[in-house]
Amino acid sequence: MMKLTRFVLSRSGSKSTPMKSRTRWFSTYSPNPNGYGSSSSVLYADYTIFKGKAALSISPILPTFAKTLSGALKVDKKGSILLKFSPAIGERKYDYEKKQCFALSATELGSLISLAPAKSCEFFHDPSMKTSNAGQVRKSLSVSPLSEDGYFFTLTVVNSLLKTNERFTVPVTKAEFTVMQTSFSFMLPYIMGWHQLSSQSSGSNLAKRTDVSLSPNLEWDR
Amino acid sequence: MMKLTRFVLSRSGSKSTPMKSRTRWFSTYSPNPNGYGSSSSVLYADYTIFKGKAALSISPILPTFAKTLSGALKVDKKGSILLKFSPAIGERKYDYEKKQCFALSATELGSLISLAPAKSCEFFHDPSMKTSNAGQVRKSLSVSPLSEDGYFFTLTVVNSLLKTNERFTVPVTKAEFTVMQTSFSFMLPYIMGWHQLSSQSSGSNLAKRTDVSLSPNLEWDR
Amino acid sequence: MMKLTRFVLSRSGSKSTPMKSRTRWFSTYSPNPNGYGSSSSVLYADYTIFKGKAALSISPILPTFAKTLSGALKVDKKGSILLKFSPAIGERKYDYEKKQCFALSATELGSLISLAPAKSCEFFHDPSMKTSNAGQVRKSLSVSPLSEDGYFFTLTVVNSLLKTNERFTVPVTKAEFTVMQTSFSFMLPYIMGWHQLSSQSSGSNLAKRTDVSLSPNLEWDR
Amino acid sequence: MMKLTRFVLSRSGSKSTPMKSRTRWFSTYSPNPNGYGSSSSVLYADYTIFKGKAALSISPILPTFAKTLSGALKVDKKGSILLKFSPAIGERKYDYEKKQCFALSATELGSLISLAPAKSCEFFHDPSMKTSNAGQVRKSLSVSPLSEDGYFFTLTVVNSLLKTNERFTVPVTKAEFTVMQTSFSFMLPYIMGWHQLSSQSSGSNLAKRTDVSLSPNLEWDR
Repeated sequence: MMKLTRFVLSRSGSKSTPMKSRTRWFSTYSPNPNGYGSSSSVLYADYTIFKGKAALSISPILPTFAKTLSGALKVDKKGSILLKFSPAIGERKYDYEKKQCFALSATELGSLISLAPAKSCEFFHDPSMKTSNAGQVRKSLSVSPLSEDGYFFTLTVVNSLLKTNERFTVPVTKAEFTVMQTSFSFMLPYIMGWHQLSSQSSGSNLAKRTDVSLSPNLEWDR
Repeated sequence: MMKLTRFVLSRSGSKSTPMKSRTRWFSTYSPNPNGYGSSSSVLYADYTIFKGKAALSISPILPTFAKTLSGALKVDKKGSILLKFSPAIGERKYDYEKKQCFALSATELGSLISLAPAKSCEFFHDPSMKTSNAGQVRKSLSVSPLSEDGYFFTLTVVNSLLKTNERFTVPVTKAEFTVMQTSFSFMLPYIMGWHQLSSQSSGSNLAKRTDVSLSPNLEWDR
Repeated sequence: MMKLTRFVLSRSGSKSTPMKSRTRWFSTYSPNPNGYGSSSSVLYADYTIFKGKAALSISPILPTFAKTLSGALKVDKKGSILLKFSPAIGERKYDYEKKQCFALSATELGSLISLAPAKSCEFFHDPSMKTSNAGQVRKSLSVSPLSEDGYFFTLTVVNSLLKTNERFTVPVTKAEFTVMQTSFSFMLPYIMGWHQLSSQSSGSNLAKRTDVSLSPNLEWDR
Repeated sequence: MMKLTRFVLSRSGSKSTPMKSRTRWFSTYSPNPNGYGSSSSVLYADYTIFKGKAALSISPILPTFAKTLSGALKVDKKGSILLKFSPAIGERKYDYEKKQCFALSATELGSLISLAPAKSCEFFHDPSMKTSNAGQVRKSLSVSPLSEDGYFFTLTVVNSLLKTNERFTVPVTKAEFTVMQTSFSFMLPYIMGWHQLSSQSSGSNLAKRTDVSLSPNLEWDR
């Protein structure tokens, strides 16, 4: 999250508390000449589950888009749902400086959304994948069944460089897991970038009759 | 709901009937110079279930946001779904002056959305929690199974100050409960404040290429 | 639908084909001075199921809102999902002049959304309910199981004035019923008027810090 | 997809890689005088599943709208979800020039959304249906169960003109299928054109009290 943090700080100069999720936000009310929102900011809207040994804070991260030379728009960075685990350091007190993050991809969200009761799943990430640091840090998120349709969310971070091995476990109730599944389902299309399509569509598609044909021609492309 | 009521009255001077839900509404068509909707109002869009002994009226309450010194946006007050119970005082007549409210949090909505047939759940609220009046009023909402996949919604309000003990029971059919579950699922992300993200996202995120990286960097924050 | 038709004709002078659903549509791009969309139109976006004996055409109808004296907004007419049955008069030809309509309320949508396989439900409407013509026309929509998780949609219209008794039956496949359930779930909050809240919310709620308090105060209203 | 491609090229002159989905995108920020988005572009936001023998890329296509003489809006071309299969030509390399497409209609999406575990379904398309070339190309998409709640997506394209018979098979995990089901459910109302209604609705419907009546009158139209 370094880059994002730096970016945010450079814009807001905030000593933003690490706990909060940082996401770029644009006002739709004061668009700048180039036609896009100009005033940007950071939005804090985490859903946090406070438990005895750790807190699990959840927030979405939208994809970013870039313009191609041809003027087309393409997803530049895919979106994700960020899980942040912070250790407890007393009653209802958590050390957010020591938090560890795990960003869920669309497909990982798919397996959580469809996770059947009493089933479990596990994801493995290497934050430095495909870089010279590959393998130095290994993260795994395991979701295993808890009584009454709840789940244990356990994040393990092994850093071979710092010789550290951290482990966070947060028991998630069925109600809390349902909040996750419902909000993940809501966010999935946004994370995929499909919201651009839908949010643009109102009114737009009748600007002129485009030659987008139904299946016959769409499929007749060779 | 006092503060809100006062706020509303001060703006509209309305002797608004207590029954209706009061929610601030802004026009997106006449933004004022500061870039936000200027004309605000109250929206009445309750979903009401009228039964023999009481009426149950349901309406969403959006979160409010505040700007931090650093210019960041944060959820100031979380949203909720407000349940209002009003006693019947005759055929199809209800005394809305005597209504009692219960505001469901995101997690409480999660347990209703995922409530299995024939299962029940119960929530306890102390309206004055963490104030000097703590414990004076105790509210509990119990949702217990009714024949044919329906549920009894029972609100109990014990006021040790006024020495009152009120009890409202509304039988909710499977169809009515499905309306609740569907609309609660729709509203959940809004109540969490995540809609800000999604509703801002159209077009905005391509304003400039931000350095939001996918999981590798996002997770590489220590 | 008379009034609406008249309204539409007066605006567009169209001899609009009865088949199409008529819904007011506003451009968000050319708002008039009073702050609301000025150019209105009619939107035809039916989902139609063509079968041997009849065609079933489905389209949503949004609620309308009115301003109270106090300046508050309230749902004036509730929304609905309109089902239109038209008899077949040859191969793939239907007589839309002879169509009969049935408007599903939020709660009726709830029972269809939650209709379990092999279960059935039935709704009864009196178009002239609470008028001097009450009882002259009786409509009933029955949804009964069909093989392979499909359903028969049967509309019966008995008009004691015209001494007519019409009956339309359309077999709906599981796939078609799923399209209904998915689109009904999507539309339900809009039909309830809750979309006003959500669609207004972006940016709006941070215009100024309103005194909407969380459950404690919200519930502390007596 | 020819027409669309040609259209796109003519606008952007891009040698756009065939892999990407091309969908018209409009900026809502720089509407042109006629009240609709003027700057249009192409959006690349595919959800792609890369497997050993082929890649399956998925993207939505919105409906287009046309104005009738009476000034009404009607869906001109229905929307769809486009599936693109591209053969593998090495490790993690795919030949997008050789891709074959299959556009799913609303009802076909309905059968995928409701596809039960261990069940299968199959769709047949003739890209030249109702043209002089009818029958020359036959496409079939078969979705059959895979271990652990996954599915095999198999596209077969038989071209009697080119004497070719192509077959693409992509194993889809339960997680990936859930991403499909969730995003298909999200997109369905947009593909049907109902989003126009909902996205227009904010604020619009209170512009003036329209005479849209509830069921009684709506149903009383003959």
